[in-house]
Amino acid sequence: MAERFRHVAIVGKHQAPGIRPVLEEIAQFLCSSGLDVSLEADTALNTGLTDYDALSHDELGKVCDLAVVIGGDGTMLGFAREMAPYGIPLLGINQGRLGFITDIPIERWRESLAPVLAGDYEVEPRAMLEGEVWRDGEAIFTGLALNDVVVSRGATAGMVELKISVGEHFVANMRADGLIVASPTGSTAYALSAGGPILHPSIAGWLMVPIAPHTLSNRPIVLPDLGEVRMEIVAGRDASVNFDMQSLASLLHGDTITVRRSQHQVRFLHPKGWTYYATLRRKLRWYV
Amino acid sequence: MAERFRHVAIVGKHQAPGIRPVLEEIAQFLCSSGLDVSLEADTALNTGLTDYDALSHDELGKVCDLAVVIGGDGTMLGFAREMAPYGIPLLGINQGRLGFITDIPIERWRESLAPVLAGDYEVEPRAMLEGEVWRDGEAIFTGLALNDVVVSRGATAGMVELKISVGEHFVANMRADGLIVASPTGSTAYALSAGGPILHPSIAGWLMVPIAPHTLSNRPIVLPDLGEVRMEIVAGRDASVNFDMQSLASLLHGDTITVRRSQHQVRFLHPKGWTYYATLRRKLRWYV
Amino acid sequence: MAERFRHVAIVGKHQAPGIRPVLEEIAQFLCSSGLDVSLEADTALNTGLTDYDALSHDELGKVCDLAVVIGGDGTMLGFAREMAPYGIPLLGINQGRLGFITDIPIERWRESLAPVLAGDYEVEPRAMLEGEVWRDGEAIFTGLALNDVVVSRGATAGMVELKISVGEHFVANMRADGLIVASPTGSTAYALSAGGPILHPSIAGWLMVPIAPHTLSNRPIVLPDLGEVRMEIVAGRDASVNFDMQSLASLLHGDTITVRRSQHQVRFLHPKGWTYYATLRRKLRWYV
Amino acid sequence: MAERFRHVAIVGKHQAPGIRPVLEEIAQFLCSSGLDVSLEADTALNTGLTDYDALSHDELGKVCDLAVVIGGDGTMLGFAREMAPYGIPLLGINQGRLGFITDIPIERWRESLAPVLAGDYEVEPRAMLEGEVWRDGEAIFTGLALNDVVVSRGATAGMVELKISVGEHFVANMRADGLIVASPTGSTAYALSAGGPILHPSIAGWLMVPIAPHTLSNRPIVLPDLGEVRMEIVAGRDASVNFDMQSLASLLHGDTITVRRSQHQVRFLHPKGWTYYATLRRKLRWYV
Repeated sequence: MAERFRHVAIVGKHQAPGIRPVLEEIAQFLCSSGLDVSLEADTALNTGLTDYDALSHDELGKVCDLAVVIGGDGTMLGFAREMAPYGIPLLGINQGRLGFITDIPIERWRESLAPVLAGDYEVEPRAMLEGEVWRDGEAIFTGLALNDVVVSRGATAGMVELKISVGEHFVANMRADGLIVASPTGSTAYALSAGGPILHPSIAGWLMVPIAPHTLSNRPIVLPDLGEVRMEIVAGRDASVNFDMQSLASLLHGDTITVRRSQHQVRFLHPKGWTYYATLRRKLRWYV
Repeated sequence: MAERFRHVAIVGKHQAPGIRPVLEEIAQFLCSSGLDVSLEADTALNTGLTDYDALSHDELGKVCDLAVVIGGDGTMLGFAREMAPYGIPLLGINQGRLGFITDIPIERWRESLAPVLAGDYEVEPRAMLEGEVWRDGEAIFTGLALNDVVVSRGATAGMVELKISVGEHFVANMRADGLIVASPTGSTAYALSAGGPILHPSIAGWLMVPIAPHTLSNRPIVLPDLGEVRMEIVAGRDASVNFDMQSLASLLHGDTITVRRSQHQVRFLHPKGWTYYATLRRKLRWYV
Repeated sequence: MAERFRHVAIVGKHQAPGIRPVLEEIAQFLCSSGLDVSLEADTALNTGLTDYDALSHDELGKVCDLAVVIGGDGTMLGFAREMAPYGIPLLGINQGRLGFITDIPIERWRESLAPVLAGDYEVEPRAMLEGEVWRDGEAIFTGLALNDVVVSRGATAGMVELKISVGEHFVANMRADGLIVASPTGSTAYALSAGGPILHPSIAGWLMVPIAPHTLSNRPIVLPDLGEVRMEIVAGRDASVNFDMQSLASLLHGDTITVRRSQHQVRFLHPKGWTYYATLRRKLRWYV
Repeated sequence: MAERFRHVAIVGKHQAPGIRPVLEEIAQFLCSSGLDVSLEADTALNTGLTDYDALSHDELGKVCDLAVVIGGDGTMLGFAREMAPYGIPLLGINQGRLGFITDIPIERWRESLAPVLAGDYEVEPRAMLEGEVWRDGEAIFTGLALNDVVVSRGATAGMVELKISVGEHFVANMRADGLIVASPTGSTAYALSAGGPILHPSIAGWLMVPIAPHTLSNRPIVLPDLGEVRMEIVAGRDASVNFDMQSLASLLHGDTITVRRSQHQVRFLHPKGWTYYATLRRKLRWYV
């Protein structure tokens, strides 16, 4: 049986003009439904909403059992990554054009939210990537990504060359503008622009997509999500790496990026009847 | 611990000129290693080798516990599909240019075969597709595929339109020259030509690749291998469907092709140290 | 200075329900503007419009100096090819969703047509392909194409292999599902689905796009439009060839398709201010 | 009739180990054929060859009527661009793996060179791009490119957004990792990696290829080479532009890159019987 919720975190894309009234309405609705409500601290600060506790990410993670995110895919992406260690499910209400992961239009927040609170919803788990950048035997950077880990050439440099391994196996050396390791969630983001396929979220695999590869047969490849993916910088000046939005620049030859499945996963909630394919049809305009 | 073998089936690409001597040498080597040896009936008939029992596929399946296939990927593909219901592992010795699934060069058959017989090898399971074509509530065709199931438009007709579902979910209607549903094994065959990615054999998923789709965003998609993929012919004259090499032409509107994971799988044996990635590097010339 | 018109041909997509009234209005408007008006015979027959001369394509070609086509890209494509030998310019009024080459919405036919009659318009010439199929030294088929010439494999056959030359030069042997030779006009049609680029209509070249080629590096190529493109069927059963909509099936090994620039070209008229790029933006949804 | 030569410039990839002896042999051969020989200054300096005049690029351009380049495509690319204003034809002798534009293997320099000196050769002109970067009404950078002009996003920045026009026409705003404007020569270089088609060198057009574009329908497009291509930086931090190898970083919003056909062109000489298609077949392994 589906879980019921007691304490809801509210996060809003607080930069969006005119978002305060709708946040307030949603908060009141949740309260009047008998739930405790806390606001994410930045959301509270920037909207001036003071009727609810303003908590840090860590505090929200510890006390809440549901997060309602009002914004776009970007807002959701960032907050979902923060909540992953706490296992809190997230519901996305989209304030603008519907996204891949925030699929409730703001005009319908009320009729979408009510059944969810009543326990009537779909849960959709999403795998995450975590990893490090290693230099001289030390981890100089640690990251977590729901979409992708991207290694890129320096802006005015030629291609980067990477030595790629999966688990104990050498895959290949690749020369390209960059290399994307995407989760199924990330397969419809940057990786799609770079020529990758779509991965259904239930696929236990990572998508590796070279960007403008020197060798034409360096096609996108779907790798098992067991074992660690390792990318060593073999050549190329000023390469950088990017875990979702957190980046480390000025990589050196010999620096090695390791990526593996995080023990944490994100859980998105959707109104009953939601399907991933309907989202694809709408976002990719798959109409005949 | 790895299994040891007692009774080996030998199959050869018997149309290949000059294949008889090497088949004979391999058979003698297996005998002298203390194994029983049987020949596939067509191989025996066409090469004139009479020193060994000539058995049908069914007989081979029942008595043998290893098959040695001498030929190319095509020969292996056909025979592996036949042996799948019997669970017999297969070892491929390539008579021409090395393939994706027959990767022992004929010049090295002896040093490759000996350790395998001694129990020193890698086993690599490969998923298979099985399915039917349904018309008016009846299955008018049944097929099994190690590579792919392909629906194609009629030769002089316009695009075919397919209504696609996975499990209980509607995916989309697609208009295209055709649609490929490939196993990971098939991802490096026709699907690659049509723009698909490579799927590592351990990925539990099917690759769906539309061929020259009318809608540019109908990109390749990796689907879960649970649940059934259904493709209904909605429009287009003279469409046909193809399970590896077995095809049914003149499909009608309303005809529905269903595909699912077969309970059988193929097991390829490789010399110790073999890796899938080395095969990709060699076949796709992934050298920097 | 722009030419003025005296005698207008009207062609309609006569299968389209409810097209008669608008054809009648347009015809009356042209008459009342002092122009002679003739109807294409099929259009007259199928709509029952009897107030105007119903002429064959040849008669229209000889007496008219402008054709107004009411329908979609398909209607325009077919009629433009017929009128090309007579050099008559065409104006497309789109009855449904705007096309690449019929870009006046039917709701605005009046305000779009008036300035054109007054000499205020853009002329856009489009190159055409013409060619033959040769067997045993004889031309067994002759065709003309505004979009493309397509060679395709047989429906249940494997890939077709073609030996391709341009002018006196051998290009390559290619194995694929088929091969498209498209004009710039055709570059946004089937060739785009098969992975080709867009060619601006002023480019003096043909686009050659292999469909699902066996060799990954067989990329689309833009060829000079001087000299003849020759494609010889080297392997593959039941291949066929298609000039726009006219097709010849059951090609044999040795059959050779030749294609070259037609001496005729199509001239599309557009309202002043029309640009090709605006059409691309609208049709391909190039909005950021 | 083909021109005969009097004074030959020799340029070598002087970093390549062991190149001095072959440069010396070639120089002696040219002298003994009755031609004047000069060395490019850097080549002379770095190889220590002192028997011939060492001249600057400008001096070579003024006195020579043929340049022999010993190295790879990179060496040729750089020197060809330098010689373009002087109209001197170039012959490429390849010291390593044969390139797209240096196609005489070093082992055959003697038998290839002799007929060329006797007037027996093919001339192949190649178009060049020239352009500027404009800021606040001033040209802050000027460049010349034989391959391509590339605008790229900043290394750790998101996509760059460009407003693109051709001549007086607005094309589109595009968001991507970058945008390549390539000559036909450049179509087989970086643009091919980014998904572009091949342009035969005789095509009078530029190839525009967006790199990992946000909008899937932003496909490669072949533009007329009349009129100027303009790309204005609309969004994106730290974008840079690159004319072949010369780059300008830290572009600002509003900066505009203009590109047009240079009045200069490069002329490559090839042994009689050379064809562009043979080069494609060899470099892209178009073997069936």
